[in-house]
Amino acid sequence: MKETMINTIKDIDAHNVIFIEGLPGIGLIGKLAAEHLIQELGAEKFAEIFSPHFPHQALIKEDASVRLMKNKLYHGRSNDKDFIILVGDTQPSPSNSFGHYEIVTKIIEYIEKFGVSMMFTLGGYSTGGEIVEHPRVLGAVSHPELVEEYKDAKISFRDDSGAAIVGASGLLLAMGRQKGMKGMCLLGESPGYMYIDAKAAKSVLEVLSKILKLEIDMTALEERAEETENLIHKIQEMQRKSMSQNMPEMSKDLGYIR
Amino acid sequence: MKETMINTIKDIDAHNVIFIEGLPGIGLIGKLAAEHLIQELGAEKFAEIFSPHFPHQALIKEDASVRLMKNKLYHGRSNDKDFIILVGDTQPSPSNSFGHYEIVTKIIEYIEKFGVSMMFTLGGYSTGGEIVEHPRVLGAVSHPELVEEYKDAKISFRDDSGAAIVGASGLLLAMGRQKGMKGMCLLGESPGYMYIDAKAAKSVLEVLSKILKLEIDMTALEERAEETENLIHKIQEMQRKSMSQNMPEMSKDLGYIR
Amino acid sequence: MKETMINTIKDIDAHNVIFIEGLPGIGLIGKLAAEHLIQELGAEKFAEIFSPHFPHQALIKEDASVRLMKNKLYHGRSNDKDFIILVGDTQPSPSNSFGHYEIVTKIIEYIEKFGVSMMFTLGGYSTGGEIVEHPRVLGAVSHPELVEEYKDAKISFRDDSGAAIVGASGLLLAMGRQKGMKGMCLLGESPGYMYIDAKAAKSVLEVLSKILKLEIDMTALEERAEETENLIHKIQEMQRKSMSQNMPEMSKDLGYIR
Amino acid sequence: MKETMINTIKDIDAHNVIFIEGLPGIGLIGKLAAEHLIQELGAEKFAEIFSPHFPHQALIKEDASVRLMKNKLYHGRSNDKDFIILVGDTQPSPSNSFGHYEIVTKIIEYIEKFGVSMMFTLGGYSTGGEIVEHPRVLGAVSHPELVEEYKDAKISFRDDSGAAIVGASGLLLAMGRQKGMKGMCLLGESPGYMYIDAKAAKSVLEVLSKILKLEIDMTALEERAEETENLIHKIQEMQRKSMSQNMPEMSKDLGYIR
Repeated sequence: MKETMINTIKDIDAHNVIFIEGLPGIGLIGKLAAEHLIQELGAEKFAEIFSPHFPHQALIKEDASVRLMKNKLYHGRSNDKDFIILVGDTQPSPSNSFGHYEIVTKIIEYIEKFGVSMMFTLGGYSTGGEIVEHPRVLGAVSHPELVEEYKDAKISFRDDSGAAIVGASGLLLAMGRQKGMKGMCLLGESPGYMYIDAKAAKSVLEVLSKILKLEIDMTALEERAEETENLIHKIQEMQRKSMSQNMPEMSKDLGYIR
Repeated sequence: MKETMINTIKDIDAHNVIFIEGLPGIGLIGKLAAEHLIQELGAEKFAEIFSPHFPHQALIKEDASVRLMKNKLYHGRSNDKDFIILVGDTQPSPSNSFGHYEIVTKIIEYIEKFGVSMMFTLGGYSTGGEIVEHPRVLGAVSHPELVEEYKDAKISFRDDSGAAIVGASGLLLAMGRQKGMKGMCLLGESPGYMYIDAKAAKSVLEVLSKILKLEIDMTALEERAEETENLIHKIQEMQRKSMSQNMPEMSKDLGYIR
Repeated sequence: MKETMINTIKDIDAHNVIFIEGLPGIGLIGKLAAEHLIQELGAEKFAEIFSPHFPHQALIKEDASVRLMKNKLYHGRSNDKDFIILVGDTQPSPSNSFGHYEIVTKIIEYIEKFGVSMMFTLGGYSTGGEIVEHPRVLGAVSHPELVEEYKDAKISFRDDSGAAIVGASGLLLAMGRQKGMKGMCLLGESPGYMYIDAKAAKSVLEVLSKILKLEIDMTALEERAEETENLIHKIQEMQRKSMSQNMPEMSKDLGYIR
Repeated sequence: MKETMINTIKDIDAHNVIFIEGLPGIGLIGKLAAEHLIQELGAEKFAEIFSPHFPHQALIKEDASVRLMKNKLYHGRSNDKDFIILVGDTQPSPSNSFGHYEIVTKIIEYIEKFGVSMMFTLGGYSTGGEIVEHPRVLGAVSHPELVEEYKDAKISFRDDSGAAIVGASGLLLAMGRQKGMKGMCLLGESPGYMYIDAKAAKSVLEVLSKILKLEIDMTALEERAEETENLIHKIQEMQRKSMSQNMPEMSKDLGYIR
């Protein structure tokens, strides 16, 4: 394997799809939101993505069997619309820009065949440690006119001129735009510690489901979000006790495989 | 040399082989076990593997001549079965995922020609410093049904869901599986200091020889294991004397070339 | 995208061009000078450069839309001469020599078609923290005879034998020379903190405009230069107050995207 | 430039050459020795080597003109024998094994055309800080029988089994051997600080000139060696004054471009 491979498992009949990306990143926000959406839509896996730019390791599954690190494409339908959803174990290492570009190029070429009516890339936006009571959802778009189109969806289009969206969420949007694909990136505000931030994921999914007119049962995500909130309260408690200097160590352990 | 090369030294007559990997890793456990097996089987080297992803250096041999870093394939026979055993000086650097994938891809393609009835990849599993009296052998398989097949072999199939097997032991198993090869990874528990852990290597080889119904004289390995145990006792002594903070320095020196 | 791409947006009619490079580097000196020149010449963008060696991220624009990191080529005319000016968001990471060489090779091949009468690469020269009242402009040339040709232009051709010009400013000059292109690198002296050094940029542009006999309104750059000077005075103040140890932290934040 | 290029400047008439390598490494020992040999033989440059794996920078020459980082091949004749000598500014970065292999492969292919009767690679061997009064010259060979052949040349063929020769000196010898080329690596003992160690270079060149029956005027090298010795005395003085903790900083500055 000398380059990224996308293996089709099952041919799908999909046209003019809504493409949604939720790969691991800050707080696993995009991944949580996209995986919940897959469950709610009953979407089915139809392709797997392997890459020599993913970590060189095998993951152990619950049944003691192993598999390669991978990304996956799911297909679901709702309201007469086709959805293709991208999730997975990992992205290339932050020092490997070449790998990020290679993978995103392959994915864009692959989904282009179906026609892409709209792309949503999901992720997190670090507040740099500050804890937020009600995580906002920050938006960035492929084409400026989309700001107007989605202005009622409780998205914060701040002037973040010069800021960057790192990794697949940014590259898919910007490279898709070069192929004429419309898209929007939705980023849930998060303290940015490396725990799983289900609360921010819920915020992102609420905005997305409203836009897509999807009825999504948030119960499971709410339960995880509650756990998140409890965790945050504990962290705040610890910070009050001036123990914040030990935190980076702790959070690193929780975030190794994202 | 722009990619990994496997040079056949000698044509072998081998079919439906049992493939065993023991490249350098934690405590050199896999390497020790595989090299001991080569000796016991009287296996012969038939191919050499060179790669631009190996360290850019020459190794000095006892006779003052040098050679490139390499991996090697050995062929042996026992109980009417063909064995191909992979050992070597090194694996690519941990920051070079691309190199790991490239080499493993080449090896899989090469051994596939012989037919592979079963693959065993051997290595170590770090307890994170904790010293273990009787190192267990942890198992992971290519196909879940193999857990049942090997349940009598004193292998611990713990639920390590989400854990990762890094390097050749993991990649060979997971990439072999994609080619339909059955396989199992056997990992000897080890404190994970970077000394040579012959005790854990013995545990791994005991499990493997039982599975393969091989009579293996463990004397040499037992001697090395005793040395290991003495070393561990020394380390424990030092830890009791609260000198543990000096250990990482020490162990690093011992582990430079693996 | 597996290699650097230069997309022509608009065909231009240009011959025997003067090529000017101002990509991000020390103090953003080259970038500031080249962007000011683009504005003054009313030069127009005619090509965009994308590369898998650029950071794997999308930049957010003022209108909340995103775009890939890129370099850009502008075309302008003055005194019957064609100018091609290279500016952009970024250069490859310092650890990726291969990427630097690949991009510069593509750019040289691209501009060679127009014929290049002279190349000017603009950048900064770090004094290693020392603040300079009147930043000198240091020069290095493709061909030694150019020193004589430009001796009246207030350029300091010090004996810097053995010193290196890192990145595009150095590679373009040296690789261009191999294709027979004449060129000169102009480096404005700068303390080398990672703030924007408009004062040094003004010095560089003054030298360049004198050489090219261009009338350039420096007002905007002077205003920025004044801000720079105020910033430098603040830094000096802080240094006097022995707070210099906090500065690297500060300056890093200001320099993330260059 | 996407791979290493060797540009022939001048066709040479050379057969069955003695190939000598002296690229930058520990103490610049190999480089000093090889450059002195070039001068003594009156050897002429006939080829230049450029590589995208070299640092991405231009070097400033004394006349203020710049050039790319490069390696060079020289041709000289003495005692009816053809010499090809490899020297240069740099080797790839230590983290870029792929680059090291690529360059050495190209060089081997290039010199193979002339026929190589013997290869000598020159370098240093760090004692890890210990200062040596009379630097020994350690040897390693391509073929064990060469130890016997060169036993009278005051070379120390210690049992360094398992030690490694890093970079071009090691790779050229080991990869040359795979093409059937005979060779020897000569490493001058050096404290391994990153200053220029002319004393060790002289030791290496004395061994080499004796082997090759070359009359070499060591005066210039002796002068530099004296400077080295003075520097070493200063360092010893400083060490006596317990200032050794400041040394790594110092030596780093001297060794940036090797």
